Amino acid sequence: MPSTTTPVSIRRITDDSASDAEDLLAVEEPLEIVVVARARGGRPSAQADRAERRLGITMRTPGHDRELAIGLLFAEGVIAGAADVVAVEEGEGPSGGLVRVALRDEVTVDLGRTERALAVASASCGVCGKASIDVASFAPPSPLARGVPRLAPRVVHGLAARLRDAQAVFGRTGGLHAAALFDAGGALADLREDVGRHNAVDKLIGAALLAGRLPDPGAVLMVSGRAGFELVQKALRASIPVMVAVGAPSSLAAELASAHGMTLVGFARDGRFNVYAGRERVAVPAEAAS
Amino acid sequence: MPSTTTPVSIRRITDDSASDAEDLLAVEEPLEIVVVARARGGRPSAQADRAERRLGITMRTPGHDRELAIGLLFAEGVIAGAADVVAVEEGEGPSGGLVRVALRDEVTVDLGRTERALAVASASCGVCGKASIDVASFAPPSPLARGVPRLAPRVVHGLAARLRDAQAVFGRTGGLHAAALFDAGGALADLREDVGRHNAVDKLIGAALLAGRLPDPGAVLMVSGRAGFELVQKALRASIPVMVAVGAPSSLAAELASAHGMTLVGFARDGRFNVYAGRERVAVPAEAAS
Repeated sequence: MPSTTTPVSIRRITDDSASDAEDLLAVEEPLEIVVVARARGGRPSAQADRAERRLGITMRTPGHDRELAIGLLFAEGVIAGAADVVAVEEGEGPSGGLVRVALRDEVTVDLGRTERALAVASASCGVCGKASIDVASFAPPSPLARGVPRLAPRVVHGLAARLRDAQAVFGRTGGLHAAALFDAGGALADLREDVGRHNAVDKLIGAALLAGRLPDPGAVLMVSGRAGFELVQKALRASIPVMVAVGAPSSLAAELASAHGMTLVGFARDGRFNVYAGRERVAVPAEAAS
Repeated sequence: MPSTTTPVSIRRITDDSASDAEDLLAVEEPLEIVVVARARGGRPSAQADRAERRLGITMRTPGHDRELAIGLLFAEGVIAGAADVVAVEEGEGPSGGLVRVALRDEVTVDLGRTERALAVASASCGVCGKASIDVASFAPPSPLARGVPRLAPRVVHGLAARLRDAQAVFGRTGGLHAAALFDAGGALADLREDVGRHNAVDKLIGAALLAGRLPDPGAVLMVSGRAGFELVQKALRASIPVMVAVGAPSSLAAELASAHGMTLVGFARDGRFNVYAGRERVAVPAEAAS
C-alpha cells in the first residue's frame, strides 16, 4: 500500500511563537491510464484492430489505482460494468504510476472521444469543462426506484461523524477528501480517500463494481466536501439513489438530482441537514411528526 | 451583474424538526471561450489565417466572465499579458454564456494544443490531468525577488478574516470559493468568487492583468480553500511571490513553491498558520524573537 501522506518540514507560527515542525501532506502524483480495446469500426476478430491507447494522466493520491481506473472508465461510459473488463494491471508510466485496463472484445470504444473526455474528466474537479455538454443529454442507465431507500433522519445525522471517524488519514493531513458508501441503516460499506474529491468517488465506485456491490437500490453515497453536479452524475451513472454531502450543492447538482429522482442532501453536519431533491426518501423526524 | 446565487426550495431537518425553507445555491453554468487568433504557421498579414476557435466550455459562476477568460488564457500561456488582447466581448453561446477573445496579430497560437490544454484547464479542479505533464518543465516567466515582500505574522493572521468579511456571497450560500489579492500590509486589493476555486483565481488574475496591477512584487494571493499545485502554478505564472491558503497544500504544491522560491502558507486560520515554502518572507513574531 503506497503512502498517502508525505512528511515535510514546516515553520508553525502563532500569535506569539514560531517553531520548526514536521507536518504531513497529502500526496499528489500522476497516474496514467491506458486502455486496450477494439477501436470502433474495427472487425471483432481482427487482432490488429485492438489498440492500446493512453487515455490521459490524472493527478491522484496513490493507492487503489486499479479501482480509480475502473471507476473513471465507468463514469465516462467507456465500460458498463466490471464484466467489460478482462484485465487490470498496475505498471510504471513515464511520469509515475500507470494502470492498463484491457476490455473484452465486444466492447468497442470511440478512443478519440474517450481520450478527450477522460482528459477532462480525470481532472478531479468540482466543475468540469466536458460535463456541461452532458447536462442536457445525460441519462442514467436506469431510472431510480421511487421512495427507496427510506432514510431515518437520525441515520443521516450520524453519517458525517462516521465518515470522519473512518477517515484515519484525514485527521493527519486535513488534505484528503473522502467518499463512502453506507447502507440505509447507516452502516459503512466502504470508504476511499483522495486529494481530489472526484477521484475519491471514482475509487469508491470502482471498488464496488469490482466487488459486485453495485448497483444497490439501498446505497447511500456520502462525500466529505461539496456536491458539484459531476458528482451527482457519477452517482446517477452508478444508480445510487441517495447522495449526502457535508458541504453545499451547486445549483446544477440540485437540478440534475431533481430531474432524475435522486435524493440530494447537503450541509449534513452538526445534527442538521438540508434536502435539495428527492425528499420523499427522507422520513419526517419522529418528534416533528408527533 | 448576473446573479451568483439562485433560490431553491428545500426541506430543513434537525434532530426534532422538519420544515420547508428557501435556500440559496451557488449558480454553476457553462461559459464557452472562443479565441480569434492567427494559427501557428500562418502568414502574419493573411486575413484568412485568422481563425476563430472554440477553445472549450468551463462551468463557472456567472460574473466577471471576461476576466475569467483572460485569466485562463494567461494561466495557460496563450497570452503573455493583457497587451496581447485586442478585444474581449461577451456573447451568447449554444449552451449559455460566451466570451470571444481576439488576440493581436503577433500572437500565434497552437490552437490544437491550446484547445486540449484549455479543455482540461478549464475544469476548475484541485488536481488536473494536464498539469502533471507540466510539473517537471514548468518555469515561471521570471524568477521571484528573494525575501520580498516581508510579511509580519499579524498580517497573515488577519487575512483569513478579511477574506471572509469580504465574501458577502459566501456567507449566503457556503458554496463559493474566494481568491483575493492583498498587499504586504494586509490591505485588500481585489476579490473574486466562483463555485470553482481555479476559476476564482483566474478571475482575480484576469482582473489584475486588465487593470495593469500585475506583476506586483508585493502581491499576496489568498485562497479560501486548499492549495493544489495548479493554484501554485497560476500564482507563479503571474509572478505572485506569496500564496496563503485557508486549507491544506498538497505535496506537489509545496514542492513546486519550494522549487521556485515562492512562499506558501497553509492552514491560515484561528491565529495560526504553517509555512510550507519560502519561510524567509515571513518575519518571526515579535514575542518569539524577544
